[in-house]
Amino acid sequence: MARGKSHTNLDEAFLALPDYWSPRVVAAANGQYVKVAKVKGEFVWHAHADEDEFFLVRKGALTIRYRDRPEVVLREGDFHVVPKGVEHMPVAADECWVVLVEPAATKHTGNTVSLITRTIEEQTAHLR
Amino acid sequence: MARGKSHTNLDEAFLALPDYWSPRVVAAANGQYVKVAKVKGEFVWHAHADEDEFFLVRKGALTIRYRDRPEVVLREGDFHVVPKGVEHMPVAADECWVVLVEPAATKHTGNTVSLITRTIEEQTAHLR
Repeated sequence: MARGKSHTNLDEAFLALPDYWSPRVVAAANGQYVKVAKVKGEFVWHAHADEDEFFLVRKGALTIRYRDRPEVVLREGDFHVVPKGVEHMPVAADECWVVLVEPAATKHTGNTVSLITRTIEEQTAHLR
Repeated sequence: MARGKSHTNLDEAFLALPDYWSPRVVAAANGQYVKVAKVKGEFVWHAHADEDEFFLVRKGALTIRYRDRPEVVLREGDFHVVPKGVEHMPVAADECWVVLVEPAATKHTGNTVSLITRTIEEQTAHLR
């Protein structure tokens, strides 16, 4: 596991991300993690049974598809909360930078197991 | 109390802020509030006994003064967590736009009472 440094600037943290769909924790407060993720393409359908998920687009555009409601398109500066228990799939046609705020306990792909899944140890390895 | 609309874009929410030092809640997730605040000048010394406070500067520069440690200067894109229980005073020489993430229970000026203090009802009035 490659180690990196801890950042205090969002864009520096984005630039240090090695891969798409590999969130990195940049701050912790009140049992929540603030994460940065660089995404491109389709993620996987998943839900977080007990955790809401806050998305803020820093650069590019992100679509959040839902099974049971209209999709939401987020552009730079737009934010959105995916409610707990609701199945969703993030999709980005082009590279998109996303800030996430979610409980430390949140699993990357919820209860869905995927090759793309990153453990919380992987998301925090650069801080150790 | 002036009502406004609920925003889904950070900059639109900042532009709708009526006053300095009057945070507005823009999103709620997992018992936390995401807030926007437009600040200028000196705030008041205060601490939040039980809550960490996450700061992210969207525009301008914010200095966070501490009694017992070096001050922290945050510029656009910089973030910082003020740990619970630690006395601090935010200061901005010029107008600065700040994103805050903190528990819904967090009081604006902690246990300090000030003319500047905004209740959580005032911070969420535009959502009703």
